Amino acid sequence: MNRAFVIDTSNSPYSKLHPVSISSVKFTDGLLAERVKVVREVTIPTQYELLEQTQRINNFRRASGKIQGDYFGFFFNDTDVYKWIEAASFSLMSERDEKLEKLLDDVIEEIKLAQDEDGYLDTYFTFDRRKDRWTNLKDMHELYCAGHLIQAGIAHHRATGKRNLLDIAIKFADHIDSVFGPGKREGTSGHPEVEMALVELYRETRNYKYLSLAKFFIDERGKGLVGGELYHIDHKPFRELDEIVGHAVRSLYLNCGATDLFIETGELSLLNALERLWHNFVERKMYITGGAGSRYEGEAFGEEYELPNETAYAETCAAIANFMWNYRMLLASCEGRFGDIMELVLYNGLLSGISLDGKEYFYVNPLADSGKNRRQKWFACACCPPNIARLIASLPGYIYSTSFDGIWVHLYTSNIARIDWDGREIELEVKTRYPWDGLIEFYINTDGEYIIFLRIPNWCKRYSLFINDQEISTNIVNGYVKVERLWKKGDILKLNLIMEPEFIVSNPKVINNIGRVAIKRGPIVYCLEQTDNPFSVCDLEVFTDSLLTSSFEPILGGVVVIKGKGSIVDTNIWKRNLYAPLKDINAKRKEVEFTAIPYFTWANREPGPMEVWIRKV
Amino acid sequence: MNRAFVIDTSNSPYSKLHPVSISSVKFTDGLLAERVKVVREVTIPTQYELLEQTQRINNFRRASGKIQGDYFGFFFNDTDVYKWIEAASFSLMSERDEKLEKLLDDVIEEIKLAQDEDGYLDTYFTFDRRKDRWTNLKDMHELYCAGHLIQAGIAHHRATGKRNLLDIAIKFADHIDSVFGPGKREGTSGHPEVEMALVELYRETRNYKYLSLAKFFIDERGKGLVGGELYHIDHKPFRELDEIVGHAVRSLYLNCGATDLFIETGELSLLNALERLWHNFVERKMYITGGAGSRYEGEAFGEEYELPNETAYAETCAAIANFMWNYRMLLASCEGRFGDIMELVLYNGLLSGISLDGKEYFYVNPLADSGKNRRQKWFACACCPPNIARLIASLPGYIYSTSFDGIWVHLYTSNIARIDWDGREIELEVKTRYPWDGLIEFYINTDGEYIIFLRIPNWCKRYSLFINDQEISTNIVNGYVKVERLWKKGDILKLNLIMEPEFIVSNPKVINNIGRVAIKRGPIVYCLEQTDNPFSVCDLEVFTDSLLTSSFEPILGGVVVIKGKGSIVDTNIWKRNLYAPLKDINAKRKEVEFTAIPYFTWANREPGPMEVWIRKV
Repeated sequence: MNRAFVIDTSNSPYSKLHPVSISSVKFTDGLLAERVKVVREVTIPTQYELLEQTQRINNFRRASGKIQGDYFGFFFNDTDVYKWIEAASFSLMSERDEKLEKLLDDVIEEIKLAQDEDGYLDTYFTFDRRKDRWTNLKDMHELYCAGHLIQAGIAHHRATGKRNLLDIAIKFADHIDSVFGPGKREGTSGHPEVEMALVELYRETRNYKYLSLAKFFIDERGKGLVGGELYHIDHKPFRELDEIVGHAVRSLYLNCGATDLFIETGELSLLNALERLWHNFVERKMYITGGAGSRYEGEAFGEEYELPNETAYAETCAAIANFMWNYRMLLASCEGRFGDIMELVLYNGLLSGISLDGKEYFYVNPLADSGKNRRQKWFACACCPPNIARLIASLPGYIYSTSFDGIWVHLYTSNIARIDWDGREIELEVKTRYPWDGLIEFYINTDGEYIIFLRIPNWCKRYSLFINDQEISTNIVNGYVKVERLWKKGDILKLNLIMEPEFIVSNPKVINNIGRVAIKRGPIVYCLEQTDNPFSVCDLEVFTDSLLTSSFEPILGGVVVIKGKGSIVDTNIWKRNLYAPLKDINAKRKEVEFTAIPYFTWANREPGPMEVWIRKV
Repeated sequence: MNRAFVIDTSNSPYSKLHPVSISSVKFTDGLLAERVKVVREVTIPTQYELLEQTQRINNFRRASGKIQGDYFGFFFNDTDVYKWIEAASFSLMSERDEKLEKLLDDVIEEIKLAQDEDGYLDTYFTFDRRKDRWTNLKDMHELYCAGHLIQAGIAHHRATGKRNLLDIAIKFADHIDSVFGPGKREGTSGHPEVEMALVELYRETRNYKYLSLAKFFIDERGKGLVGGELYHIDHKPFRELDEIVGHAVRSLYLNCGATDLFIETGELSLLNALERLWHNFVERKMYITGGAGSRYEGEAFGEEYELPNETAYAETCAAIANFMWNYRMLLASCEGRFGDIMELVLYNGLLSGISLDGKEYFYVNPLADSGKNRRQKWFACACCPPNIARLIASLPGYIYSTSFDGIWVHLYTSNIARIDWDGREIELEVKTRYPWDGLIEFYINTDGEYIIFLRIPNWCKRYSLFINDQEISTNIVNGYVKVERLWKKGDILKLNLIMEPEFIVSNPKVINNIGRVAIKRGPIVYCLEQTDNPFSVCDLEVFTDSLLTSSFEPILGGVVVIKGKGSIVDTNIWKRNLYAPLKDINAKRKEVEFTAIPYFTWANREPGPMEVWIRKV
């Protein structure tokens, strides 16, 4: 059984943990199982239709001479095809699908025909534009496209065993290696992505030149080769960075590549920079949803504590990049704080990017909205839809890792897993209603002495642990509890994470959240959506000393809904006043009950205002 | 006794009230008496020295050929001399000062020598720039300078009976009238001011042509003659305005001129526009201090509800213009809501513009500050210092008005007044500690049947009224109570305005004030200043359900200080966190007592942070 899915650190010297393949983990039921199923059944097929309709596959046919006409769309549209292939490949790891496999082969054939003899492959730089190849690395995304091709080739190979796309990718990678590198041409990519792809190609092929090339592209940053600006994260050498800046997706993809490079080389100056960036991001620039990038302008990070809600950019791709980066940091460190961010962004700012029916997408994910923002079926710049498809399709691979001494559980969802460990297959079944309930039961199906490491999420202040209904006491070390035992088939390990709704406040330096609270329950961030509430949700002021109650409701595919109390002041009082005595306002409060829903489910029903950060009385 | 000071509406058909001269009202003690005294004794003499040092008077000597050299400073620097003359003239109305009167004559002689034979007078447009006269009305402020000259000439004439400056002003006004008007040259002023000056010159001379010219300049707006932009309030005809926009001082000066024009002509389309602008200003764009103008950029009004605190512009001149405009609206209407705004801006955003020692000035008046903003001795663009000097020097004139049936009291401060009414002089003495206490005693020194109208401020929710210690019941009509009686010398009328400190909240559309409260007591807006508090004032979160206590303290010249309770959360908790459960934060609160001082007195001691809108728990 192939352990690898997106990254394969089984031979990586500085990876403390190793991934467990998608194919080893079968989601049985629950929120994530449903999301994966919808992506497989709805999203992947509809996206293929859209790739055809929007000429994205025709761009390859045009490049190979099969059809005539102009290149269509943005110059980086090839990547949407590659990301869709990656999504489909991950999906095949979960569940075989001969029709899909055949379709992939057909698409790959179109790609193959579009490749130049020298290995170059970018359907935009064909015919008249051939002469412009590699002339504008800052803006033209050729290396970014190459990165996605390489990742798709690797995923397809790992899913199917076939080399047809992988060989195309290698041929392009070899071409890139022939052009760039020490003693060859200088340069790096205006849009990072190729770095992590090249490290993975090294892992896949064990050909060291790809790792060297990844390192080269990272080393080249900060020399002004791609503009020298914050936007391209080219203002400083990577190892000197101490503030997360620039285009959010580029910045976080670059961090993925640098983390991969650290995992292979152990170069501490990389890890030190990554740690500085992580702290800066998580402690100064990340939305409560895990969203990244405050600004529409440049799709970029803002200043520290600049986290506007209604104008939050928080691109879906940036949430995905955040998840991908923290996963790499987790493998490098075994520290639960990275799993905490993975969980946070997954259940909030990432899943919000796709509709519950799997057919529509948010590009930006505001934390407050007047009701005008709605998910779209597609975008001219369609980076987010296939990106979220590939991420969700790969989710079974993110639940577990292994180390020499046992099995690590990072995320909780119902599943049956058969995990390669120490030359054996260990089978366990997880039953839980997580994230709606904190009780997680592990049914052990394989005898043996191994440690099970369980992540205790940072939102959890009280938990208990039972083996066969006997409570055991444990300590949390780096975010995990360690359960060491000679396991017998039939053992039941129960983890109970006490999950209660609570009000969250923001660092007062975040001026947009002053006087406001958010509501969270477990990993889920809640929001008020107009359709659930009989008053204008933007007028609500919550009583933070009143009780919040939770109940599972059959709306929105089945979610825990939270109710609480607040007050509404007749807005007429404010029609002709800027200022009023607080006691006059308090005298006019009308108590109301409000209903909050998980943020990621908003905008799946009738349009209306939405708010995550709610004013408090 | 001449009733007039800044404006004389004794013959104005649409003035419901008529001003009472500065010379009729003698401030005896208290806050305003002290401010007027400091302006007379300190501000006016020091400003004269600065006018000399900064070449502002030399610009006149240069224009007349007395001295050689370049024109120095901004092209509108003449106005600082004119405003100082107005301040000195108002001061002479309060208290004769032969030396000052002689100094005024000397300065006026320099001005006279600088005037062209044709009446033109602007020391910037002399020698080489003579050819540029009247070529750029949008930017070059010639009519603005003329307006201040006219106002100074009128004030000086009313104060001293002398015509030396008034004749210069008339000569320039006649020159302007020869250039502009129907059938003559088109145009209006990029910086309004001349309109109200011309109306007053009409009142002073009864020469109708000045009123016509004022009307012409107002009628010319909105035709694109001065750029057609919001900034110059030239985007629409004045009578069509419905939102207060553009440069705050220009906008409010224009409103003064238009109100003056209404008072003379009764044209309702003017009043309707003024009412729309007033409501828009007071209900959407005015700071709690009465300050006007949210933006540094263009010294301008922002959007509705755009009222940032730390970056508030709230120019001192705009506060003065606000006061001036509301006084005119009050005369036109008899409605206390205009007096409420006069009182509010006077005690807060206006008096904040000058230091307690009368020597330093704020140009901008932020509502929150890190401690970097300090008052300055002077500015290159020094519009504010002589403007606040003339306003404070004229304060005794704003306390009362008269109508055919009696005497109106708009502002409360200790004074002895001898008021011309119905051909008689009515004397009364007011004793009060207002604004520090709400008890106001009127000692009636003149027999007679007349009504005393007393403004009940909009901040006051409970008041009582006594005649010779007998409580009487009254109704408030348009903001005033009416006390009608056959008065006997020795009668004592007591008004007790219950004055308690209270928390004020802001319309939630003002996003900068969400989650914050201000503290007010009577007309006074309070602030936290670092020097009074042993914790970082920006970290304070107040308990709005705890009691606020007041006490008169001998600091800052004697002010009522307010104390209350709040909490501080150890800021270390926020060093490494963006978000935290509210209950964790609440568990770490440390209760503290805070001290708040009147906003207008801030920055008179050691520098430090200041905040008007304080976070609440």
